[in-house]
Amino acid sequence: MLLGSEAEMKAELIFTGSELLQGRVLNSHAQYLGRRLLQSDIQVEWHATVGDNLANLKQVVQQAVDRADLVLITGGLGPTTDDLTKEAVAEVLGLPMVLHEKSLADIKELFKKRGMFMPESNARQAFFPAGATILPNTRGTAPGALIEKGNKLIALLPGPPAELSAMFEDALLPLLIERCGNRPVLRHKVFNLTGISESAVQDLLKNLDGRINPSITYLARPGEVQVRVTAHAASVELAEKMVAELSEKVQSLLKDHIYGYNGEAVEHAVGKLLLQKGMFLSVAESCTGGLIGARLTDIPGSSAYFKGGVIAYSNELKKSILGVAPELLDQYGAVSKPTAVAMAEGIRKLTASSLGLSVTGIAGPDGGTPAKPRGLVYIALATGEGTFCQEFQFPGERFAVRRGTVSAALNMVRHYLQDGKI
Amino acid sequence: MLLGSEAEMKAELIFTGSELLQGRVLNSHAQYLGRRLLQSDIQVEWHATVGDNLANLKQVVQQAVDRADLVLITGGLGPTTDDLTKEAVAEVLGLPMVLHEKSLADIKELFKKRGMFMPESNARQAFFPAGATILPNTRGTAPGALIEKGNKLIALLPGPPAELSAMFEDALLPLLIERCGNRPVLRHKVFNLTGISESAVQDLLKNLDGRINPSITYLARPGEVQVRVTAHAASVELAEKMVAELSEKVQSLLKDHIYGYNGEAVEHAVGKLLLQKGMFLSVAESCTGGLIGARLTDIPGSSAYFKGGVIAYSNELKKSILGVAPELLDQYGAVSKPTAVAMAEGIRKLTASSLGLSVTGIAGPDGGTPAKPRGLVYIALATGEGTFCQEFQFPGERFAVRRGTVSAALNMVRHYLQDGKI
Repeated sequence: MLLGSEAEMKAELIFTGSELLQGRVLNSHAQYLGRRLLQSDIQVEWHATVGDNLANLKQVVQQAVDRADLVLITGGLGPTTDDLTKEAVAEVLGLPMVLHEKSLADIKELFKKRGMFMPESNARQAFFPAGATILPNTRGTAPGALIEKGNKLIALLPGPPAELSAMFEDALLPLLIERCGNRPVLRHKVFNLTGISESAVQDLLKNLDGRINPSITYLARPGEVQVRVTAHAASVELAEKMVAELSEKVQSLLKDHIYGYNGEAVEHAVGKLLLQKGMFLSVAESCTGGLIGARLTDIPGSSAYFKGGVIAYSNELKKSILGVAPELLDQYGAVSKPTAVAMAEGIRKLTASSLGLSVTGIAGPDGGTPAKPRGLVYIALATGEGTFCQEFQFPGERFAVRRGTVSAALNMVRHYLQDGKI
Repeated sequence: MLLGSEAEMKAELIFTGSELLQGRVLNSHAQYLGRRLLQSDIQVEWHATVGDNLANLKQVVQQAVDRADLVLITGGLGPTTDDLTKEAVAEVLGLPMVLHEKSLADIKELFKKRGMFMPESNARQAFFPAGATILPNTRGTAPGALIEKGNKLIALLPGPPAELSAMFEDALLPLLIERCGNRPVLRHKVFNLTGISESAVQDLLKNLDGRINPSITYLARPGEVQVRVTAHAASVELAEKMVAELSEKVQSLLKDHIYGYNGEAVEHAVGKLLLQKGMFLSVAESCTGGLIGARLTDIPGSSAYFKGGVIAYSNELKKSILGVAPELLDQYGAVSKPTAVAMAEGIRKLTASSLGLSVTGIAGPDGGTPAKPRGLVYIALATGEGTFCQEFQFPGERFAVRRGTVSAALNMVRHYLQDGKI
C-alpha cells in the first residue's frame, strides 16, 4: 500500500504508562521518535499520553486513528494484566486477537536459553490483532506490530528504550519508508544564535518572516535563540533548494550571532579543529565560573587538546595567578577589554598553551551599572598572532547570560581556528 | 469554589510548541508538573501535545475541558504571532480577550529597567480571556493566568522552564491548593543520594520496601539516586507522622550517601555556611573540568565566599600551577589519594583560602584499569585543621560520574562546615 501522495503524512505518538503521568520518568521517547520521523519526512502533529487504563487508552487510540495517517504507540506490550495496548487497538479497529505461533516459539526459546520455563502469562505477548505484521524484538520478549487498516498505519512498540530503538530502527522504519514513498518531503536548517534576544532576531528577519513555505520559526532558550527554516516540496532537490535560498538570506542577516547549525555542539567542532591542528587550549573564566571548562570536558578525549585553566572569579586571583596588573584593574575595572586581554594572555603564558581564552562580565542579577549593565561580557582569545577581544551584550537572566557566554566564547575559538580571524 | 471533594481531581496537561513534536527539546515540563501535582494530591490522567496551530490547539483544549477538572497549558504566551494559547482558550470557553492594564504597565516597566522601549508586539502579552486571574511572571515578560469556568480550572503557564517553575510554585500552586481543599492529603520526603547505585540502595532498604502506605519509591538519574517516602492520610498531621517515622529508618540506613533532601541544591547550603563562618572556598578540579565552580557560581552573590580555582585537567597543570610533586604523580598516579591531597593543599595555599577542595578521578569512557576502574574518584578537602580525603566509586557513564562527583564534593564541604569533620 502506498499512502496518498498529495498530502503530507501526519503522525500521532501515543505514550502509555502511569510513570509518565506521575513524572517518575522523563519521556525521552517523544524526542527520539520526533527527531527520527522528521528525518524521514514524517511530521508528528500530536502526542497523547495515558495511563494503564483500557477506557482512556481506547479513547486516545480511536482519536488518533481518526485524525492521523500514522499512529505509533509505545509501551503496554508486557506480560502483565496492566499491559493493554494490543487489546485496545484490536477493539478500536474491530479486529480479533489471534495467536502468532512463531512469536510464541521465539518467546519460549528465549526463556529456554535463560534456563527457565516460560511463565503462562508470557503467552499473552504472542497474541496480536489479526493481520498484523510482527516486528521482532531483538532485545526483549515483547514483539511489536504494524497494523494496516484502510489507509491508516498503526505501529506498536515496546516501552523499554533499548527495545524500542532497536525495533524502530531495524524493523519499523524500513517498513514505513517503503509504505510512504513519493510523498512531499520536508527539509529544514536550524541556526543556533547567541548574544541576541528573540525579538531582536525577529526584527532583523522581519522582511523574510510570515511566509508559509518556506517558513521561519523561532525558539528562545536560556542563552540561545534558534531560528528554523523549513520547506515542503515534491522532491528532496526542490525542498533543499528552497531551504538553501532562504537560509542564505538568514545567514547574511544574522551571521554575527550564529554559533552553530542544526543543534551541533560547538565544543565538538572546537575539539576536532584543535586536534587537527595539534593545538592546545586553556581558559581563564570569571563570570562563567568553570562552565567553559565543564562544556569542553563533557567530551571524552578532550585531554588531547584541553589543558585546563583558572577560574578567576575574584579579582585577587586575576592578579595573583593570571598576572593581571593591579593598575589595569583599578583603571578599567574587572569587566573591561584590557582585563579580558590580560586574562587571555596570562592563561596562555601560564599554561604554555597555543590558545588562551578568557571571559569577564556581569552575569547579574546584581553588579550592573548604567555604564556596565547586566549582560555585558568581554571575551578575549590570545593566540601566537596576537590577541582578539569582543564585547557582547547578552539578554536575559544570570542563567542565560552565563550559558550564552559559553557558546559565544567557544564560537570565537572556532572562528579563529577555521578562518584565522574572529 | 471548592471542587467536589469525594472524587479525586483529574488533571490534563497540554504542551504546545512544534519544538516538542520535532524532538528539538525534551519535554521536562511533563515530568516536573506531573511530580509536583501528584505531591499536591492532583492526579494527572492525560497529556496532549500540539504545535503552534490554532485549529489543533482548540481541539485539544476543548477535549481537555470536557474530560478533566483541571487543565494546565504550557507555552504559547509569547509576543509573536505563533503564540496562540490565550486565543485558543478564549474561543473554546466563549470569552472575549481583554486588556489587563497592570500587566501592560509591568511589561513596559521591565523593558524600561533594561533600558529599552517595549516593542509593540509585546502588548499582546497583556491581553487575557475576560475574568482570568493573572499570575505574575517574576522571570520574564509573559504573565500567566488561571481561568475558572463552571467547575473547571484552566491554567496558562509560560514555556521557558525558569519562568514556568517560578510561576507554578509561587502563584499557581497556592491557588490550586486553596481550591482543592478537604481532600485526603499526601506527604513525602525525598532523599538525594550520590556515590551509590539504585540496586545497592534497594538492597540496603529491602526490609522497609514493599509497603503500600507509607511507601518507598526509587528514581535513578545520572549521578544521583532519589528515594521517596510517601504517605496518604486523612490529615496533614497523620501523613507527616507516617513520613517522619519511615524517613528516620531510611536516614539511618543511607546516611553516608545522602547529599540533600527534597531536591535542595547542596551548593546553596554550602554557600550559606561559608557566609555564616566568613570563610572562602577555592577548588582544584581534574575530572570535573570546571563543573564544581560552575555549580557554585550559578548562585548569585557567590563571590562573597568563592574565590575561584584551577581546572587542572592535565598533569602538567597539576604540577606547574598547583605544585603537585612530579615524584608523587609518578609513584601514585593522577588518580590517587596523595595527588588529591596535594591538589587540595596546593589550591588552598595558592589562593589563600580557608578551604581548598580537590577532585581527581576516572570519568571514562576510557582510562579505566582493573585496579583503577571508571568511576573511581578521590575528593580531598584541605582545611586549617588538616586535610581530609575520601575515595568514591561512582556508578554509571561519564556524564553521571562527573555530576555525582560534584554533589559528593560539595556535600563533603557541607559536612565539614556543619560538623567539623567529614
